[in-house]
Amino acid sequence: MFDRLEALLTAQHPFTADELQAIRSGAQVRKVRRKQLLLQEGEVCLYKMFVAEGLLKTYYIKDDGSEHILRFSPEGGWTTDARSLHNQTVSKLNIEVMEDSVVLLWTHEVLSSLVNTIPALQAYTNDLISQNLYSSYERILSNISATSEEKYQEFVNNYPDLINRVPLHMIASFLGVSRETLSRIRHAQLKQSH
Amino acid sequence: MFDRLEALLTAQHPFTADELQAIRSGAQVRKVRRKQLLLQEGEVCLYKMFVAEGLLKTYYIKDDGSEHILRFSPEGGWTTDARSLHNQTVSKLNIEVMEDSVVLLWTHEVLSSLVNTIPALQAYTNDLISQNLYSSYERILSNISATSEEKYQEFVNNYPDLINRVPLHMIASFLGVSRETLSRIRHAQLKQSH
Repeated sequence: MFDRLEALLTAQHPFTADELQAIRSGAQVRKVRRKQLLLQEGEVCLYKMFVAEGLLKTYYIKDDGSEHILRFSPEGGWTTDARSLHNQTVSKLNIEVMEDSVVLLWTHEVLSSLVNTIPALQAYTNDLISQNLYSSYERILSNISATSEEKYQEFVNNYPDLINRVPLHMIASFLGVSRETLSRIRHAQLKQSH
Repeated sequence: MFDRLEALLTAQHPFTADELQAIRSGAQVRKVRRKQLLLQEGEVCLYKMFVAEGLLKTYYIKDDGSEHILRFSPEGGWTTDARSLHNQTVSKLNIEVMEDSVVLLWTHEVLSSLVNTIPALQAYTNDLISQNLYSSYERILSNISATSEEKYQEFVNNYPDLINRVPLHMIASFLGVSRETLSRIRHAQLKQSH
């Protein structure tokens, strides 16, 4: 249950066995089914979430009912609404289970206390925030500069294991291109590869 | 020269006079002219930059020669290539002066040392990183979900003072919409308001 998390934590930073035990003890373990919601818009986000097994999506529903996917979180990934969690404000995001999953949940209070007492966790968290910031800027640059073909190719390169787990219309939603455009692109690529 | 910075720093966090003096002493003050470059792609970014007066733009040039603007930094704003600065890797971004400006520059080494010895600066920096992360996610959601009209309206709401300082084609570049589309939108709005 905690293997994947501990492998990630200890890959770059030195944790003692006691520290890892404290992190495990602070977590709530939850088995969840496809279609369950871990956060709904209008709620305050209560947890930072680590996906031990499965796949989540974090998305926003526009007034016109269209769904826009901010993040896919496969096993080994994190998700939350950081602003809602930190500021205890209402979220406009939803977090939904895409495949039956096991998630590890820490409240803001528990996680803050762990981060403040475990220097390696502080360092890991800082690295994670930096990575999120860098990849956000990369994604913004891609959003404003790349063609639809380039966006799809970047997705294939960045998330090769998601291509067969996520329906095409959700990839289109994540990339901000129309479903029709993405169908055309994939069709053209399949033709080329034959 | 440092008034705007100190007002920002002390607005939310308690700094002593000595701490503010240390922050001032660590800065290089540079007067720069329109069109000067503070960072060019292919270089390692050497500084975190605060705009005391003027206006900078941070942008990426695609292989086809098109320019894509990641960030406008008017007086009171920060910019850098965080990844390049932290990891001492080559940047693919450019930072250019749009209006004659006064910028304050700290090297990564000096700033790290200040952050590590001044708790209020640590707290300010953490808040700034959080704000950058939240606003990046907002921008990604806007990029993938908003119509061109909505994107322009968000820009007007978020940066009312930039509308008359930044040419329309640069706003289009920042928003990731075509210049023609943005001209049409602004024209329609001007007609409506008469």
